[in-house]
Amino acid sequence: MDRGARNLITDVPGLLVGNASDPALKSGVTVLTSTVPFVAGVSIMGGAPGTRETELLAPDKTVQEVDAIVLSGGSAFGLAACDGVSDGLVAAGRGFAVGPVRVPIVPGAILFDLLNGGAKDWTANPYPALGRAAFDAAAPDFALGSEGAGTGATTATFKGGLGSTSCRLPNGTTVAALVAVNALGSATVGEGREFWAAPWEEGQEFGGIGPASHYPKTIKTKLGGQGANTTIAIVATDAALTQAQCTRVATAAHDGMARALLPSHTPLDGDLIFAVSTGSREVQTPPEDLLLIGHTASICLARAIARGVFSARPAPGDVCPVWSA
Amino acid sequence: MDRGARNLITDVPGLLVGNASDPALKSGVTVLTSTVPFVAGVSIMGGAPGTRETELLAPDKTVQEVDAIVLSGGSAFGLAACDGVSDGLVAAGRGFAVGPVRVPIVPGAILFDLLNGGAKDWTANPYPALGRAAFDAAAPDFALGSEGAGTGATTATFKGGLGSTSCRLPNGTTVAALVAVNALGSATVGEGREFWAAPWEEGQEFGGIGPASHYPKTIKTKLGGQGANTTIAIVATDAALTQAQCTRVATAAHDGMARALLPSHTPLDGDLIFAVSTGSREVQTPPEDLLLIGHTASICLARAIARGVFSARPAPGDVCPVWSA
Repeated sequence: MDRGARNLITDVPGLLVGNASDPALKSGVTVLTSTVPFVAGVSIMGGAPGTRETELLAPDKTVQEVDAIVLSGGSAFGLAACDGVSDGLVAAGRGFAVGPVRVPIVPGAILFDLLNGGAKDWTANPYPALGRAAFDAAAPDFALGSEGAGTGATTATFKGGLGSTSCRLPNGTTVAALVAVNALGSATVGEGREFWAAPWEEGQEFGGIGPASHYPKTIKTKLGGQGANTTIAIVATDAALTQAQCTRVATAAHDGMARALLPSHTPLDGDLIFAVSTGSREVQTPPEDLLLIGHTASICLARAIARGVFSARPAPGDVCPVWSA
Repeated sequence: MDRGARNLITDVPGLLVGNASDPALKSGVTVLTSTVPFVAGVSIMGGAPGTRETELLAPDKTVQEVDAIVLSGGSAFGLAACDGVSDGLVAAGRGFAVGPVRVPIVPGAILFDLLNGGAKDWTANPYPALGRAAFDAAAPDFALGSEGAGTGATTATFKGGLGSTSCRLPNGTTVAALVAVNALGSATVGEGREFWAAPWEEGQEFGGIGPASHYPKTIKTKLGGQGANTTIAIVATDAALTQAQCTRVATAAHDGMARALLPSHTPLDGDLIFAVSTGSREVQTPPEDLLLIGHTASICLARAIARGVFSARPAPGDVCPVWSA
């Protein structure tokens, strides 16, 4: 299938992504937003999630659209990044209208990067400012790897990072993924550098070295090591989906995590996926199309996970090597 | 990792499986039971499930243990198989005690096999009798492939079927899987016979031909064909797990479906997984062990899916070829 022009989630028209990173903190924030609200759902499969405003994404809840979604480092402290994003949205006159006031709707999720060698001895929570900076940086182009929520991310084998990919379906629909990879498990097979996601690589977007030729039975995990986990993602499409359909796409997209990370969805990962629809393609989406969007989202996410690890760069004090070294 | 002695779910001590098949109907029922009640949880990820007594498996609900679990063909008609199993349990003096009466707890799930070439023109629902026959046949040994709930199962490429595998962990815990494979997608890669689950094959349990060497970008589905889907599974362990822990294992086990079937968890599949604990190993299970049990369940399930397709046999009126032909 064809990639979009940027091979980023921002190939979905209207979506913007901003990163903010603090190298000393070894952490950061990634924000997905748009100039207009967009429909969002969520599916949570990990055993240790850290979230904010995810309950209102249930299809029966009143609010159907959000103003931004935050992926952040910092474990539960990182949920404060949503405050900074909210401030930015208020300054832009954005938010859910309740009489004369506007309340920005900013769901967020965090990953655990408190034991990654960064300076975590702050006296005031740094994440609201990082959230605001990420929001202010939102643009169609953004950097991958050790950026934003992926700044201090790790996996069992190599440094994690921020990944993104896109796909253009034959009917013109765009499907794309954005992920901060910080898994307890590994995106690569055994001791080697081949990615689990290799069967779905487009071009040489994560190195082009192809699938592994040998599959050892033992798995790599962070257990006994820094114990700092969670992979959080957003998948997106311009197909017009309801919140319930977004929820189904988020569920199907978890297959991409299962295929790209072993193990995944563990009791010690907060693995979760948001799915968003900009709805700019004003068509009904029947089950057959929803099926293809969900499957494509899973493939985009698997590719984005490999690309996040592939794109990581070394930094002072790192606790694990980078894939490209 | 080592397989159990039978490489079946019945390698978990105490578990018994019975099949009943109707060749003309091209359908059947598989029952998992034991001589004593066992803890069970469930995780439902497909968009089109057909279930019975799954609500009581939520960790906050009162009943913690079940007497049997039913996997059945027949779409919603197949839920009647639970009635026959219940009758069998009553005859054996089994069930949840409520004063002087006993109410057997029999969760069940179905797959859609109503368009598979079988004789579906019954005047009385045949599934209660099939359920009773499957219960009466329950034993440590049982047949795989075109048996029980897998009798009339199909996939996008080859005939589906009933699969099972087991694994013995280094600490002595057994983890195992049982599955009726009737996916909208395919367990094999592209036009070939190599299984998606090949990286995890033990011995030559599903043919030993190894992984695919080429991964086409197009996927195979039943769309436009017979449109008859759903993969339903049970994973099991003798580790002592709470109902909440079983639910987590069921969630993690979905990764095995994602790895062995493409696509899976679609809006047109009722993909779901029960997880059971016989609790015969009387130990506490910490998160690290729960992680390994969940991951191993996902690998056992991926292997069982391939083994179900591998074990299918041809029958008159089949609508798709068998893998072994």
